[in-house]
Amino acid sequence: MNIKELDPSPRLLMGPGPVDVYPRVLRAMSTPMLGQFDPEFTGHMNEVMALYRGIFSTANHWTILVDGTARAGIECCMASIIEPGQKVLVPVMGRFGHLLKEIATRIGAEIVTIETEWGQVFDPDEIERAIRQHRPDVVATVQGDTSTTMCQPLDRLGRICREHDVILYVDATASIAGNRLLTDEWMLDAVSAGLQKCLSGPPGISPITFNERVARIVEGRKHIEGGIRPEGFVAANGPMIRSNYFDLGMLMDYWSPKRLNHHTEATTMLWAARECARIVLEEGLDNGIARHVRTSKALRAGLEAMGLKLFGDATHRMTNVTGVWIPAEIADADAVRSEMLLDFGIEIGTSFGPLHGKIWRIGTMGHVCRKANVMRCLASLGMVLARNGAKVDPRAGIDAAYGVYADG
Amino acid sequence: MNIKELDPSPRLLMGPGPVDVYPRVLRAMSTPMLGQFDPEFTGHMNEVMALYRGIFSTANHWTILVDGTARAGIECCMASIIEPGQKVLVPVMGRFGHLLKEIATRIGAEIVTIETEWGQVFDPDEIERAIRQHRPDVVATVQGDTSTTMCQPLDRLGRICREHDVILYVDATASIAGNRLLTDEWMLDAVSAGLQKCLSGPPGISPITFNERVARIVEGRKHIEGGIRPEGFVAANGPMIRSNYFDLGMLMDYWSPKRLNHHTEATTMLWAARECARIVLEEGLDNGIARHVRTSKALRAGLEAMGLKLFGDATHRMTNVTGVWIPAEIADADAVRSEMLLDFGIEIGTSFGPLHGKIWRIGTMGHVCRKANVMRCLASLGMVLARNGAKVDPRAGIDAAYGVYADG
Repeated sequence: MNIKELDPSPRLLMGPGPVDVYPRVLRAMSTPMLGQFDPEFTGHMNEVMALYRGIFSTANHWTILVDGTARAGIECCMASIIEPGQKVLVPVMGRFGHLLKEIATRIGAEIVTIETEWGQVFDPDEIERAIRQHRPDVVATVQGDTSTTMCQPLDRLGRICREHDVILYVDATASIAGNRLLTDEWMLDAVSAGLQKCLSGPPGISPITFNERVARIVEGRKHIEGGIRPEGFVAANGPMIRSNYFDLGMLMDYWSPKRLNHHTEATTMLWAARECARIVLEEGLDNGIARHVRTSKALRAGLEAMGLKLFGDATHRMTNVTGVWIPAEIADADAVRSEMLLDFGIEIGTSFGPLHGKIWRIGTMGHVCRKANVMRCLASLGMVLARNGAKVDPRAGIDAAYGVYADG
Repeated sequence: MNIKELDPSPRLLMGPGPVDVYPRVLRAMSTPMLGQFDPEFTGHMNEVMALYRGIFSTANHWTILVDGTARAGIECCMASIIEPGQKVLVPVMGRFGHLLKEIATRIGAEIVTIETEWGQVFDPDEIERAIRQHRPDVVATVQGDTSTTMCQPLDRLGRICREHDVILYVDATASIAGNRLLTDEWMLDAVSAGLQKCLSGPPGISPITFNERVARIVEGRKHIEGGIRPEGFVAANGPMIRSNYFDLGMLMDYWSPKRLNHHTEATTMLWAARECARIVLEEGLDNGIARHVRTSKALRAGLEAMGLKLFGDATHRMTNVTGVWIPAEIADADAVRSEMLLDFGIEIGTSFGPLHGKIWRIGTMGHVCRKANVMRCLASLGMVLARNGAKVDPRAGIDAAYGVYADG
């Protein structure tokens, strides 16, 4: 077998994520290992907890990493919080609402959903009505759903859930660090994220945070596996979490001064997560969000001036991904994406479900979210669309993007 | 918050894993990203499947990566194979047998265990007797259990399981690439591994392989999540796998030409896994195993000549980790490990459960498994033990290790 040295073509990743990794993060990943109980390493684990408190805008002690992609963080939170038989309300506005519903189903929960058209969000009052009607134990929602490019407003939802004594879990994978997320101020009980969007890291580790309400639930289901169980330990009365890997109680022991061994921490992914957070906090969360807002504004102005139509509710778009309708003149939408990728080295995203074949999704996330990339993307897309017979004015697109930057 | 640039102290990791990552692997991890559906990237996914067929000595088509640490690969295999209510036999010879038992319990299986003293393995006839008596659906066993340093012989077990129509799952995390593992020849139905031992990679991604018998079981439980489910798809009759993240059927779709999106592949961990396999296959599996055998022989000769006693059944030791009794004169075993780490930069392992405080575990795994490291470890441990009052002859240890290498 002759498998050659790794040598991928350079790409500019402007899909819905993953996106290009910040070079400092790539470099951090080539840092040698430390043993998992080396005091230097456990020191780094504590630093990472502190860094992600900054990222999540929280004082939650329990701010840790789950070793897996963003979906692992979601399942870890949901499987540890939701008991089989409990009622879970999932507002579904896109693919990732379906995912939360699916995960809750597999946990054995009773699911209630409310649905809205892809491209819309929920009014918090609508969610409150569903809470009053169905009296769920948990509400599980996505903040930014890349499948629709929409950002669900959460600023009132936490308080609503608190008033009804409901636990609120939020999947902020695609939104974090590019859209405002105030865990404590908004009273979000548990939030999970991923590195591969606005945090400019690779997928493979998932930062999560949760408050004391959630910690008490998890403690009530506490179990320690045989072989490392301290003598005299008595398991809690609550139903055992059905996953060992995603047992938040055991992760808490691993991330506490007890350092009770669970998995072996994914060391290089922790190095990556650490560097991602340092970079975002050095820029400042607000500055980074402002950069996402402005860059998207330039991209969107360019796309519209070029003659394209933007997708979805304009007042609730995520700052970091833009849906654009595929022009009617384009017979083969995937050929356009393919020319963008293979001839211009720029990846833009296809879409799922009811939007498949109808919109493309263009990401401006994290490290990729900058003027030069917007310009390259607009220029290239304009040319590819024109060559494929679409009625577009590429020059107008570029001028409009310049105009946004000229506005100061 | 002032969190400094990553700058860990150099360590030589000679514990039971993780161990030092091969520098080529560290470098591979700083390779930029590709999008997950980029044809170049899916090409790399296929290459990785081929590479790990080599590592597992199998022709199994289904040889893929699970995005999480080794324990994620274990849970993925077990949760996808074992249905709630099925009977699982776990031979427990150490901590990781307890882990398999625990995972099967959480899945809702009925568990039968046979146990042996830590430091021993099972005669395959003993396992067969338990199979005849209990008629399990699945046997789940560890190959190399680092908690006891023992390697369970598996060459006859696959055939025994096949004769009794039992599925055999093997956790080869700690043994793979340092100890012989012949998936097809030994008729192992599913095997999972990790990078952080003899594959010289970081923890965080888990290679697994399984045959058609297992694929049929998984297909019988097939389910596709809402939001990406093709029209007209009908779920299989078998009970839904309780985890979304660990649903092997959905992972199979993701790793097949369908490329049905599940999680986002942990790109840089895949780069790492790819480079680990290339390095091991370039050396040749047999050459690598021979290197582990010889290096351990030198370490063990040195430890014994120094005056220490080795732990466990000598005929069934793993090639890559050595248990050594803590000398009676040592009052504070952790102080010795701490001096080794902080003054000599060498990590050796503590131990769990009934062996805690009784043995240390010294790893010679993957990139770390070489003469210079054995010599440094013996010299340093000899000095630290002598300074802590143990009756040891450090020079004799070094001479004995030299002797093993002089034997050719």
